[in-house]
Amino acid sequence: MRAALAHPCTHFPLEYPYLMTPLTNDLFLRACLRQPVERTPVWMMRQAGRYLPEYRATRAKAGDFLSLCKNPDLACEATLQPVDLVGVDAAILFSDILVIPEAMGMELTFLHGEGPKFPVPIRTTADVIALPVPDPMVELKYVMDAIALVRKNLAGRVPLIGFSGSPWTLATYMVEGGGSKSFSVIKKMLFDNPQALHQLLGKLADAVAAYLNAQIASGVQAVQIFDTWGGVLTTRDYSEFSLDYMQRIIDQLTREHEGRKVPVILYTKGGMGWLEQIAATGCDVVGLDWSIDIDQAKARIGNKVALQGNMDPAMLYATPDRIRAEVRDILTRFGSGDGHIFNLGHGITPDVPVDHARAFIQAVKEESPAFHQQGSLP
Amino acid sequence: MRAALAHPCTHFPLEYPYLMTPLTNDLFLRACLRQPVERTPVWMMRQAGRYLPEYRATRAKAGDFLSLCKNPDLACEATLQPVDLVGVDAAILFSDILVIPEAMGMELTFLHGEGPKFPVPIRTTADVIALPVPDPMVELKYVMDAIALVRKNLAGRVPLIGFSGSPWTLATYMVEGGGSKSFSVIKKMLFDNPQALHQLLGKLADAVAAYLNAQIASGVQAVQIFDTWGGVLTTRDYSEFSLDYMQRIIDQLTREHEGRKVPVILYTKGGMGWLEQIAATGCDVVGLDWSIDIDQAKARIGNKVALQGNMDPAMLYATPDRIRAEVRDILTRFGSGDGHIFNLGHGITPDVPVDHARAFIQAVKEESPAFHQQGSLP
Repeated sequence: MRAALAHPCTHFPLEYPYLMTPLTNDLFLRACLRQPVERTPVWMMRQAGRYLPEYRATRAKAGDFLSLCKNPDLACEATLQPVDLVGVDAAILFSDILVIPEAMGMELTFLHGEGPKFPVPIRTTADVIALPVPDPMVELKYVMDAIALVRKNLAGRVPLIGFSGSPWTLATYMVEGGGSKSFSVIKKMLFDNPQALHQLLGKLADAVAAYLNAQIASGVQAVQIFDTWGGVLTTRDYSEFSLDYMQRIIDQLTREHEGRKVPVILYTKGGMGWLEQIAATGCDVVGLDWSIDIDQAKARIGNKVALQGNMDPAMLYATPDRIRAEVRDILTRFGSGDGHIFNLGHGITPDVPVDHARAFIQAVKEESPAFHQQGSLP
Repeated sequence: MRAALAHPCTHFPLEYPYLMTPLTNDLFLRACLRQPVERTPVWMMRQAGRYLPEYRATRAKAGDFLSLCKNPDLACEATLQPVDLVGVDAAILFSDILVIPEAMGMELTFLHGEGPKFPVPIRTTADVIALPVPDPMVELKYVMDAIALVRKNLAGRVPLIGFSGSPWTLATYMVEGGGSKSFSVIKKMLFDNPQALHQLLGKLADAVAAYLNAQIASGVQAVQIFDTWGGVLTTRDYSEFSLDYMQRIIDQLTREHEGRKVPVILYTKGGMGWLEQIAATGCDVVGLDWSIDIDQAKARIGNKVALQGNMDPAMLYATPDRIRAEVRDILTRFGSGDGHIFNLGHGITPDVPVDHARAFIQAVKEESPAFHQQGSLP
């Protein structure tokens, strides 16, 4: 219905015929825009992941993790699995936030059990200047191909979410050379050479904006910016080195495509002290971690944006009954009204039993209609 | 002066003659009680640690980490090093939060580069029931001996802080079997068997209260409860599984000794959303991590408690000039008035240059007098 309007994106009429497919379940997109829904939509961050045996099989076919990201057929397969197997209301493209720096020419390795590594990290102003800005339709074409395949294979069942890491979060890996606990190298750069860091973040913001716009042109129907590490900063530094660059991305994004709005979701883990500033960026949805009660978040910013979240991911280790009680508790806290996308407060962890993930999705579907008026459909 | 009052602790007149020594620098204790000071006192969490070459030499003498904790002479040596070498305004007993579960009979190992491990973790109600409650004057006598030695050797130069982990934080290690990122085992217990966890936390709260009271009787002049992992909980679970048990400890503590108040400092990393609840426990000081601006924390709870913090520990990687600018910024945010103990927002990290730590302490000493009225001394 909504997606079946005359196609607005005239420069892709033949290459992207899948863009014409109407959505049979658009609960997620409506909730993002705080429009009425019959029940609360639900998906899970990292839902295409290791807790699914089918995902592990797909990954084994690809060989290593990065090869999986770069293989559109297998990335499509992984993207669809949670839709088919767990019943989520949105698909999220299977990929990794670090494909951007890799597309900028940085060597990226995922050694077994070690996490991502950049053997040659960015450390100096000269390093920053030397970094090329990628053309997402060239260096990240494999992502666009995966999006096309996913959209074709979804056939309108649920919307597809695209994503990127935030400039700050990407920069932490690029400067530290991998994951970090103390963030000592990038913070030293922030304190002693802020100009170089600003230059890097500016370059990344523009690269991310171009990348997300390419994803939107290729068919993602919403985008999420993951600021996994914004929460390690002080309030002042979060504003200057993370939020400002997410703002710069949002200002450049295509906000409408296929005749409907493309919602932007902004998620800063550990950023619950800064919700007002996050909501003021012009994003449509603010992602919540589990450290804040959703009623408090709603009281603070619920008149401006939709809220996504926020069950503690560790709740999925509990029994299905306990999970359902928690779902009911969060729904009750949010209360009646629209603008809630149910999700975890962070990604689902690899050792969660699949049955528990399914019980969670089912509980949201069964418990949430009571909190909604009759929907917008006749 | 204050500490030279007639000795109030009549049951230790001979064994503890060092308790008679007057304090020449009691800035820290006065600031904890929001009394006037001439300048802002400063110390650093984990100040007796690996960034000091002298500490590394002391540890090498001890062999392994746990042997260092259990050797009163060497623990005393480590405790005094930052006072002598860096010039802090308070000593904090060198020890580890995990000596309590070790005193409860749990085997504890610190393998090189691996962090602490409990090879036989607590998992069931039966495990919890079987845990003995230690007598701190027996099983933790080595701590009390270290306190006696430190007080003698400090000779009143600065006050001595004692400490413990919070029950929740101790329980995470005891149940997980070591450090954790997802806290999946203890959270599963919290969700599915809360009775067992409550029983464990109750036992720990009483053990910690007895331990801290023994430390106070032995001569520590303030105590800090470290709730390093309270911030991984939801608001509801933080209140029920962490804060309530810290309250239970505070309610049992000796609040006066040697003729003066013994301040209680409560520090929950990641707990900045819950400052009002933390301040309502009756603690004297709330420790702040660096995610909140100290002026905001002061506006929220500064009429009830003193504030300790809150420079980003990573700032110590920056140049001494940058460090000084940050110190000035935090002092300016706190503004005039008393009730501020300068500290880092979390522990000093092992690879910080000693010169930078010294520059930090010096900057607080030199920049802070401008923010205080003439002190209480004539």
